[in-house]
Amino acid sequence: MTHLQQQRERAELFRRLHHGSEILILPNIWDAASARVYELAGFPALATSSSALAAALGYPDGEAISRDHFVEAVARIVRVIHVPLSVDVESGFGKNIAEVLETIQAMLEVGAVGINLEDSTKDAQPVLVDSAYQVELLHAVRALGVQQQVPLVINARTDVFILDERETPEAIEEAVKRGNAYLEASADSVYPILAHGRATIEALAKGIDGPVNVLASGRTPTIPELAEIGVARVSFGGSIMRAALGQLRAIGEELRTTGTYRALTENTLPSKDFESLFD
Amino acid sequence: MTHLQQQRERAELFRRLHHGSEILILPNIWDAASARVYELAGFPALATSSSALAAALGYPDGEAISRDHFVEAVARIVRVIHVPLSVDVESGFGKNIAEVLETIQAMLEVGAVGINLEDSTKDAQPVLVDSAYQVELLHAVRALGVQQQVPLVINARTDVFILDERETPEAIEEAVKRGNAYLEASADSVYPILAHGRATIEALAKGIDGPVNVLASGRTPTIPELAEIGVARVSFGGSIMRAALGQLRAIGEELRTTGTYRALTENTLPSKDFESLFD
Repeated sequence: MTHLQQQRERAELFRRLHHGSEILILPNIWDAASARVYELAGFPALATSSSALAAALGYPDGEAISRDHFVEAVARIVRVIHVPLSVDVESGFGKNIAEVLETIQAMLEVGAVGINLEDSTKDAQPVLVDSAYQVELLHAVRALGVQQQVPLVINARTDVFILDERETPEAIEEAVKRGNAYLEASADSVYPILAHGRATIEALAKGIDGPVNVLASGRTPTIPELAEIGVARVSFGGSIMRAALGQLRAIGEELRTTGTYRALTENTLPSKDFESLFD
Repeated sequence: MTHLQQQRERAELFRRLHHGSEILILPNIWDAASARVYELAGFPALATSSSALAAALGYPDGEAISRDHFVEAVARIVRVIHVPLSVDVESGFGKNIAEVLETIQAMLEVGAVGINLEDSTKDAQPVLVDSAYQVELLHAVRALGVQQQVPLVINARTDVFILDERETPEAIEEAVKRGNAYLEASADSVYPILAHGRATIEALAKGIDGPVNVLASGRTPTIPELAEIGVARVSFGGSIMRAALGQLRAIGEELRTTGTYRALTENTLPSKDFESLFD
């Protein structure tokens, strides 16, 4: 099987996972090790977290990292996994559609089969981009995928709830309107990031005519509850890395105080499992 | 202050930390995020773990990664920290002294101020290299540091206890003999990796005429006990990454079973701390 055939199959598998009987749980990873741990744990697909991937390389979130370093980091992940990988490309590392397409093209070249694409600006005070621009962009991304023969899975993020955390009826209406416009513009799913209240999520899942991705967190309903109210896909952003870094901090605290190894050793990945990550 | 001056100061600080009133606790990190978490936690110096750094990039331990990728990964860490960094260069990514020196030179160029250097081969059945070769190598590494004007801290690892886990009197004697030969050959400290019994470590600390580095683990005495028996420096190898990956696995298990967020959220690094890692 050629690389392209393999990539096409992964993209098709990934798309089907949005329409299965079970909710799609996508752990957000940032490097080869975190990716392999979740692949070996049986997750059928993986997604990068932009903030976690940037942090692993030493940069804040928000396209501060160079596109080249970003692409190389994604390539290192794809190289070692056998399941579909979706990449959070933020706003696409570009000032216009042509530049964003260069980023997506690079993602396709290194083997990604899905992307997240945001609809707010990277300004100090971000604003939503014009919906018409985002629709044009999504059409262009789909056309690129067709041209490259990869049925790319496009997760269209709408940042309505970043800008309006109160989940007002107006915000919900705007998110539904944008979501449906993005689906019509060939997005495969809609990601109203930070939507967290049960009623809000239910309204979004009902109003948006396609798969909805929820950022699951301590503020949202549990995954079975999200499945019940019609959510198709959950992801976790940078929170999985933050949990790992919290564990590092706890280990350090114990080493410096009692000088013991409880946090270091309990629930650790056994050496034999670690050594078999990259056999 | 120039980069070289800064690097010299970090090397000198790092050396002093081996001779202070407190045992030097060196957390082993593998990327920019893990490094910054431990720097912000107050550790005065950091060290890479070769196995963890390789795993983050998708490779097994044992110099499977290319030297260039390895050097780039170290550069990404040094770029974001302000404390001394010691790098585990395994056997130096070279088939002879000249090639190992190229690796050390690259480490100095990206700002590392310490190295670990092993004395066993990378064969399927590793054996200890001839002590005379290691002595010649250590002299050459020191000469390179002098030439480059960096008072590099050389942690000479001896792999006696990898090859003889039983900690026999003969193995202890061999480790002491090698350790002292390495110190005479200008190593700054000696690292008898996998030595774990209290009596063994005590014999090593007594017999070796310079700072001894112990790989601390659930099998060794606690850090205060190690300090009491004369250990100057402790490190942790890949175990800190393994603990983080164990946490990832626990999070995944919970997401797939109950679909709840306890492991994901308790003890996590708060968003504001995460966002300030790379301000």
